[in-house]
Amino acid sequence: MSSLLSTIESPTDLRRLPRTQLGPLAQELRAYLLDSVSRTGGHLSSNLGTVELTVALHYVFNTPEDRLVWDVGHQTYPHKILTGRRDRMHTLRQWGGISGFPRRDESEYDTFGTAHSSTSISAALGMALAAKMKGESRRSVAIIGDGAMTAGMAFEALNNAGVETGRLLVILNDNDMSISPPVGALNRYLAQLMSGQFYAAAKNVGKSVLKGAPPLFELAKRLEEHAKGMVVPATLFEKFGFNYIGPIDGHDLESLIPTLENIRHLMDNDNGPQFLHVVTKKGQGYKLAEADPVAYHGPGKFDPAVGLVKPATPPKPTFTQVFGQWLCDMAEADTRLVGITPAMREGSGMVEFHQRFPGRYFDVGIAEQHAVTFAGGLACEGMKPVVAIYSTFLQRAYDQLIHDVALQNLPVVFALDRAGLVGADGATHAGAYDIAFVRCIPNMAMACPADEAECRQLLSTAFAQNHPVAVRYPRGAGIGAQVPAGLEGLPYGKGEIRRQGRRVAILAFGPLLHPALAVGERLGLSVANMRWAKPLDTDLLRELARSHEALVTVEEGCVQGGAGSAVLEALQAEGLSLPVLSLGLPDVFTEHGDPGRLLADLGLDAAGIERSIRARFGALLTDGANDLKAA
Amino acid sequence: MSSLLSTIESPTDLRRLPRTQLGPLAQELRAYLLDSVSRTGGHLSSNLGTVELTVALHYVFNTPEDRLVWDVGHQTYPHKILTGRRDRMHTLRQWGGISGFPRRDESEYDTFGTAHSSTSISAALGMALAAKMKGESRRSVAIIGDGAMTAGMAFEALNNAGVETGRLLVILNDNDMSISPPVGALNRYLAQLMSGQFYAAAKNVGKSVLKGAPPLFELAKRLEEHAKGMVVPATLFEKFGFNYIGPIDGHDLESLIPTLENIRHLMDNDNGPQFLHVVTKKGQGYKLAEADPVAYHGPGKFDPAVGLVKPATPPKPTFTQVFGQWLCDMAEADTRLVGITPAMREGSGMVEFHQRFPGRYFDVGIAEQHAVTFAGGLACEGMKPVVAIYSTFLQRAYDQLIHDVALQNLPVVFALDRAGLVGADGATHAGAYDIAFVRCIPNMAMACPADEAECRQLLSTAFAQNHPVAVRYPRGAGIGAQVPAGLEGLPYGKGEIRRQGRRVAILAFGPLLHPALAVGERLGLSVANMRWAKPLDTDLLRELARSHEALVTVEEGCVQGGAGSAVLEALQAEGLSLPVLSLGLPDVFTEHGDPGRLLADLGLDAAGIERSIRARFGALLTDGANDLKAA
Repeated sequence: MSSLLSTIESPTDLRRLPRTQLGPLAQELRAYLLDSVSRTGGHLSSNLGTVELTVALHYVFNTPEDRLVWDVGHQTYPHKILTGRRDRMHTLRQWGGISGFPRRDESEYDTFGTAHSSTSISAALGMALAAKMKGESRRSVAIIGDGAMTAGMAFEALNNAGVETGRLLVILNDNDMSISPPVGALNRYLAQLMSGQFYAAAKNVGKSVLKGAPPLFELAKRLEEHAKGMVVPATLFEKFGFNYIGPIDGHDLESLIPTLENIRHLMDNDNGPQFLHVVTKKGQGYKLAEADPVAYHGPGKFDPAVGLVKPATPPKPTFTQVFGQWLCDMAEADTRLVGITPAMREGSGMVEFHQRFPGRYFDVGIAEQHAVTFAGGLACEGMKPVVAIYSTFLQRAYDQLIHDVALQNLPVVFALDRAGLVGADGATHAGAYDIAFVRCIPNMAMACPADEAECRQLLSTAFAQNHPVAVRYPRGAGIGAQVPAGLEGLPYGKGEIRRQGRRVAILAFGPLLHPALAVGERLGLSVANMRWAKPLDTDLLRELARSHEALVTVEEGCVQGGAGSAVLEALQAEGLSLPVLSLGLPDVFTEHGDPGRLLADLGLDAAGIERSIRARFGALLTDGANDLKAA
Repeated sequence: MSSLLSTIESPTDLRRLPRTQLGPLAQELRAYLLDSVSRTGGHLSSNLGTVELTVALHYVFNTPEDRLVWDVGHQTYPHKILTGRRDRMHTLRQWGGISGFPRRDESEYDTFGTAHSSTSISAALGMALAAKMKGESRRSVAIIGDGAMTAGMAFEALNNAGVETGRLLVILNDNDMSISPPVGALNRYLAQLMSGQFYAAAKNVGKSVLKGAPPLFELAKRLEEHAKGMVVPATLFEKFGFNYIGPIDGHDLESLIPTLENIRHLMDNDNGPQFLHVVTKKGQGYKLAEADPVAYHGPGKFDPAVGLVKPATPPKPTFTQVFGQWLCDMAEADTRLVGITPAMREGSGMVEFHQRFPGRYFDVGIAEQHAVTFAGGLACEGMKPVVAIYSTFLQRAYDQLIHDVALQNLPVVFALDRAGLVGADGATHAGAYDIAFVRCIPNMAMACPADEAECRQLLSTAFAQNHPVAVRYPRGAGIGAQVPAGLEGLPYGKGEIRRQGRRVAILAFGPLLHPALAVGERLGLSVANMRWAKPLDTDLLRELARSHEALVTVEEGCVQGGAGSAVLEALQAEGLSLPVLSLGLPDVFTEHGDPGRLLADLGLDAAGIERSIRARFGALLTDGANDLKAA
């Protein structure tokens, strides 16, 4: 343990340090962070970028009395280290360990749980106005990245915050533009703000705010500023009613601390909402990450001295890669295909598609709502849009899915990645609810491929339909099924019997088919691969219900309203009453941890499924084969 | 039929008129509109405001080849009249008649179905880029109001559109600010743009665009412009990459037409995305509506010569009014209560609350996402937020409900108005899916009051909980139940047996309890008022299941995944197998029309419920009272 950092058990200790010690502390913190993440895996580039900002914020603000709300929150490792969780960093993102995001139940310094982007301004505004109503003097600070700023809800919050009075500071943590290509008008605009003479350190911190000033006077003011070499045209954020300060260097404590102190003073004197534009560099201080911040965005374990090394044997292709390959192949075959991503090119496997079909690739920014309605507009004109979106982020575009796509019955394909549990990212990122929230929408269909080959085939089936279809597939790899090269689909709305057994039939939706098959084998049960949560294959269901005494449904999705419920509804609609055991995610949020372990804990591995079936239908399993009904 | 308007069967006829005839045509159109809406009811103020803009757009653009996308769409009556639907205006918003919104299946001139706000830029951008990819020269135009512009997805679309090339025009239809108080920073900003010398007609249409110009050059340009008396500082919309033009008078055809012609020219020469700021007045040309545009926003039938008259006998209080009264009473009793509306003060019954508790009232703009997360921030600090939101608009904040409120288990009350069918507004506004999409979320609870008294009581129960609770209630009035004055709640998660009958029990969720009771009376069945879709009263359910041979669930919500499915799930979890008939909204979008008629068509009135029960459980209804099982 290095000498300074080991003395910091809380920000109170930090605030006792002489200011000259903060630079060395930041250096130690960065080294500790690199060492720690290289051992556990996790987010790296973004955390290397926020070291000085974190030190400065806890130094200047009276945390936890003052509220820091970190947008997205995967950049809070320095914050965690400084707020009493240094010794738990080795448990990061592991089962029972600390979360990779802020969590209210983890620390009083984590004022608001974040993970999905662009929520921080709304939350911090709520906190600031609550303090005002309660007569408390605490301050609220939202720290938001330039990517997160492109999401609509950040603007909704700016629009509201700009007319409210409260002790609110929004810090725009603007990552070095040279790293990733800017997406959208806002990022281009921020790049302009940062260019040339605009980037003039904190000189304009004390500038007087001339709200509603007549244009002539404003022009005179600008002329004067220009003469002083600090032309700062009214920024976007000033138009929203904020006092804009910056941009300043987010790695320079000598800029950060006095600027934040001045802003704190403005807040305490109720000068309205404040906006600080800070420029940082992802991966700062670790050359390899600076050079390739995307690769070091969320690495696994690695040797910091060596950096990331390619695995000797290539791992099994993930579902994401299967999707990416299908997208390219289908785009080759059909010029109407358009690919849309809300800022998840890498995560959604669209890098090759972008390179090969740049004219049909649209990264719309962190803008799920727009992504879906934009797809609707394209579909109206005869294009065939494919929206690649994580299951959990489709929640952001739910109304657009209903109102703009499904109601008009437009042929849009939704490639829902990360459906089911996601492991280390935890409850915020789990794709747990999509079957329930999609299947209640008229005109929608939803496929649940059980393996990589079916994923490709069902994407082709979805693409061939003349109405909206979602295809949900999990994070990571499946069983390693051989993926066919062609673009033939599987029959629409049809499942298949994979194992003919007796008395009890397991109906699997998605990759849990494989543990279900293992259980079927052990217990001599029938197993069906249902493939579609909607439309349900009611022919197959009727056949299974009539030839068995009980059914078991299995899905990696919420039990409440999920595919199992669809089976219950369909049975009743057919007038069939038989016992059904519905297995899936229970009605609680599932924490982070190894996905295999989580599934086992939830009884969704083969052993757990067997256990549940024995508990509920044990009486049906004990007697002989002559009980088999006619199939 | 007036002389000019009667000759216009389509915009082609309009475009054949000499320009001098357009003014008289607009006058006739306005008169026709007023006469028509006064006979059918419908939206008035907004349509009176778009008469000239509609004439000008169809005159300058080659519709339907060029695409007009009307945001929200309730201002499209002039558009409907000019596009071949004049003679069907008397059927507006009635069963089997034309919709109050644009509909793709109603006319080729309706390029995109709208109703929820702020979708138009996304859709029009999709259309513009599709045209570009297909090598078509058509133009796409989004017409969006200043209110709709505050929603995040409009900004997401601007951010994306600003960096794309395509023949796109966004028209901001900015209603006279003097009418309703501006909400949010953007509206304040627009008011500044319109004030004083900025409002300089169309003078700057041809101004050269100096994108990326160095600041000195820009300053020089401004100085020059100032010398010419037309200082136009870079607007917000220019920062997003649009060529901003305006503001111009949206009732002056002599401004509108040449400006639109110039813009069309800019579009045809691929000058990037264009932005026209038009100022109109809600209610324009009808003095009574100009004076009170809110009252004439969506009136019923009235005599245009007299205007709206108060009904002689006050109508039954609506659920909305019951909520508004409860909100005031609870705010009086508990200073922690905060009321939040996303721009629906009148619609949600919050006018009195706003007047009496201005410091605890927050109209956040059309910003459902922000509204919910803002409530989360307030709840973190010990406030008790009540978010009043239409069921259909909660779809806009689904991720925030899951990720920011439910996952953190924050005590926010959601007052879900317009749950169920809404009548004249049709499928876009129906609150059909809330039970399904809310009950799959862990930590959430959902109450379904059966009448006005229960609505108040269950709001009190919701407010007393330490976790998020939604209370759903329908549009309009209920049975007219006497509403208690106190703030006592009903037991959490508990239903009640309202009628003890035999063999079959009806389980009602919400106001359909009353037709269910009528059926129970006629057929001698048991009837339960379940009150809570989540948590389900499993004690009551078990009791009913054990004492009856079949169950019927009734809800004004989607059958797929709804409360009936919750009953099926709970029965299976209890190991109880019995026949259940689930009645509710079927898996199709329900069109506009009289709510009573729609419910009857869907078999959800007493006659329909009885019919369904007889069809499914007829055998249980024929024999005598001695079949009654022990209750």
